[in-house]
Amino acid sequence: MKRTTFDFPLSLERGGGEPLRAQLIRGLRAAVHTGRLSPGSPLPATRVLAADFGLSRGLVVEAYEQLLAEGYLTATRGSATRVAIPLPGESRVAAPVATVPRPGLPPPRPRFDFRPGIPDVALFPARAWMRALRRALAGDSLAVFDYPDPQGVEPARIALATYLNRARATLADPARVVLCTGFAQAARLVGEALRARGMRRIAVEDPGHAEQCTDLRASGLELVPVRVDDRGLRIDELAQTGAGAVLVTPAHQYPTGAVLAPERRAALLEWAARQDAFIIEDDYDAEYRYDREPVGALQGLAPDRVVYVGSASKVLAPSLRQGWLVLPASLTAVVAQAKLSADRGSPALEQHALAAFLEAGDLDRHLRRTRAIYRRRRDVLLEALEARTRGVAAGLHLLVDLPDGVEDIRLVEAAARDGIRVYSARAYYAWPAAAPPSPALLLGYGGISEKDIEPGIQRLVRLLWERRAVP
Amino acid sequence: MKRTTFDFPLSLERGGGEPLRAQLIRGLRAAVHTGRLSPGSPLPATRVLAADFGLSRGLVVEAYEQLLAEGYLTATRGSATRVAIPLPGESRVAAPVATVPRPGLPPPRPRFDFRPGIPDVALFPARAWMRALRRALAGDSLAVFDYPDPQGVEPARIALATYLNRARATLADPARVVLCTGFAQAARLVGEALRARGMRRIAVEDPGHAEQCTDLRASGLELVPVRVDDRGLRIDELAQTGAGAVLVTPAHQYPTGAVLAPERRAALLEWAARQDAFIIEDDYDAEYRYDREPVGALQGLAPDRVVYVGSASKVLAPSLRQGWLVLPASLTAVVAQAKLSADRGSPALEQHALAAFLEAGDLDRHLRRTRAIYRRRRDVLLEALEARTRGVAAGLHLLVDLPDGVEDIRLVEAAARDGIRVYSARAYYAWPAAAPPSPALLLGYGGISEKDIEPGIQRLVRLLWERRAVP
Repeated sequence: MKRTTFDFPLSLERGGGEPLRAQLIRGLRAAVHTGRLSPGSPLPATRVLAADFGLSRGLVVEAYEQLLAEGYLTATRGSATRVAIPLPGESRVAAPVATVPRPGLPPPRPRFDFRPGIPDVALFPARAWMRALRRALAGDSLAVFDYPDPQGVEPARIALATYLNRARATLADPARVVLCTGFAQAARLVGEALRARGMRRIAVEDPGHAEQCTDLRASGLELVPVRVDDRGLRIDELAQTGAGAVLVTPAHQYPTGAVLAPERRAALLEWAARQDAFIIEDDYDAEYRYDREPVGALQGLAPDRVVYVGSASKVLAPSLRQGWLVLPASLTAVVAQAKLSADRGSPALEQHALAAFLEAGDLDRHLRRTRAIYRRRRDVLLEALEARTRGVAAGLHLLVDLPDGVEDIRLVEAAARDGIRVYSARAYYAWPAAAPPSPALLLGYGGISEKDIEPGIQRLVRLLWERRAVP
Repeated sequence: MKRTTFDFPLSLERGGGEPLRAQLIRGLRAAVHTGRLSPGSPLPATRVLAADFGLSRGLVVEAYEQLLAEGYLTATRGSATRVAIPLPGESRVAAPVATVPRPGLPPPRPRFDFRPGIPDVALFPARAWMRALRRALAGDSLAVFDYPDPQGVEPARIALATYLNRARATLADPARVVLCTGFAQAARLVGEALRARGMRRIAVEDPGHAEQCTDLRASGLELVPVRVDDRGLRIDELAQTGAGAVLVTPAHQYPTGAVLAPERRAALLEWAARQDAFIIEDDYDAEYRYDREPVGALQGLAPDRVVYVGSASKVLAPSLRQGWLVLPASLTAVVAQAKLSADRGSPALEQHALAAFLEAGDLDRHLRRTRAIYRRRRDVLLEALEARTRGVAAGLHLLVDLPDGVEDIRLVEAAARDGIRVYSARAYYAWPAAAPPSPALLLGYGGISEKDIEPGIQRLVRLLWERRAVP
């Protein structure tokens, strides 16, 4: 029978007035009372405890028996002696687990969940990831356990550069890659680096990603909204902002799904060169494209102007907290320094696992598989919608225009009450006062199963119909 | 034969003037030239590429043969076709891996490494950790893959509270635990929270941990040094600083190894209550103790005054980047919010693994094993030293006093040239101007093998002797 070994500080005074047995009983009883030994937790085998404290085993057996008799402990044949549940009396000090609401926790999942921006985590390639972790742990270098290179471990930087150069047409040098924990941290690190260069204003897409804006604002930058139309960011308006940097989603604008048009790409790069400005390229879900040619990353055209940001959140799972930056030479050292200061570098084992995962071609395999699944979900969604949609050629979400006069916010609320999670596109306009957008919904199809799409949309359409009938 | 599947955007124009075969050859050649396909990387099987692009397999075979002939590709029987090394010509754009010096990278390991503050990573319980990871991945909830609770996943917070309450005598409520990536991030998060409450000054131990000071300063706090003697922090001097918080290492002062004396503990808690101040307790290596009773955490005496900080860096491995905070009720929400803003929460899989590791008793087992090993190393070190030492009863390092007149900094430099890494205690005095400490060395024995200790010390003593003879 395997017993849990035990790390438990207990002071025994030898040669004092109180017998050791009494001291042991008192110490254990106090530990239970104060919550140091929580209800249900196992005690060490008498043999182990005796050895730890230099006591005879018989003495420990006696102490346990006393506490069993008092109701502090329970014992079942063939299993460890444990702290009793419930305890005698009610004098435990430590509070039970409170379930207070905490910031950032997603609400419980609704019946029909069209949340955008997340992949279907049920598709996570757990077996391949485990294999990669095993390979990382089996590596022959002990460096994998020491403080990591804060910029990211070299094998991961090489594997990422190789992957991105091939799949996303970047021009990434591993020496300019910085591993981080996702877009939120990337924005903080780059924001700090830009602030340190004296930059004050950064342009962002409107509509855009509200959370990204918070991340950038946290580093002290002033955000300037620039409008987006169906050809992507309005570069003519960008040029009038006086901003020293801009955050864009050129491959698949969030949330409109627009692709930055070729002439706009050229104009954006020209603007950056003219203004000595930086372009932060959020390449958040570019790997998912269905009916169109892939759009290469802007970074490949101007590696000394573009900060490329990608992450595993959409292509694998958000819980991995793995992201990456490809940086211009002028920003690499300062961003790496900011990463060191923020958290001494990302967890190393998982970086090595990512490297092994990429090298084995497991990401390619996973994307090949999931792309087909998401494409089917999108097709089912389009068929169910029979409506005007935008941004459908790629990604994990689309926009559907609502009939004029529909109060989109109320529809979203009514849907929530009916077990359907959808989002109003309005929420993505940081500055809605300027020109209120026509009503539209954002529907994500990454996290909803194929068979749930049609019934969910039917229910949504019924709600829409009711709301139009009763305005 | 298993082939790597392939995610590679290649534009083929159908119905245009150029034959598809020519387009494919041109596209692959360009990909090699620009570095999108790096030397040595495998190409997909002809069958796979043909299916991907809707081409006949024969056409793809022809294209590969052409590129083989041109020297772009190489093929070995029974293995994938690969990009050739070296390439024909030299027009590759992507630079090779540069090995520029980067911040925070530890220097290459010397022959005799007495670096303090790290465990022996060769002792890392890789098998048990892998088992814990497997258990985390095999859990029945998909939530393990979604964005984590930024405060830390609940099983990890419960397992940590249970462990700390038992082993460190804390009074930790899981609802007040925040998972983070180690002391550096903990200091940033708490520093931000204190600044947000209007706090400006924080007292720190002198001598103390220089890196911690940087972490705290980064959040905008002014640091006030307070002297440490052989009974720990001078509370009388602390009371005169007007600081609203203090960072202490009560169980094992860093670097002197002093234990905060009982009357000082009481005085510190009294000061905090009187001043409505917070105590940040860095419990960095309290699990390693040899000749003395364990000293319980201060947090257990005043859970609403003390911010408890611990991490896996000393007890398991720094590369895991796992740390934890136990917070007063008044600080929990704001620190959790800061964590959300910093990185959206720590990687979830590893938190679940930590929970499984703790629940299985694997940390207790690991500590039991390593404590015996480190105790032996310390004993060997003490024997080799035959000198006045301090802080020997616990931890992974000790201080050894040098004879008066020895120039400690020069000795450290001479030792480094001779393949011995030791540190001058002087480096830990943030404000050495006040009273220059008598010369002493800091010797870590966590990362050096038992058999290397004696020869390393002998070599060091020889150097010391030479330096005294030739001042």
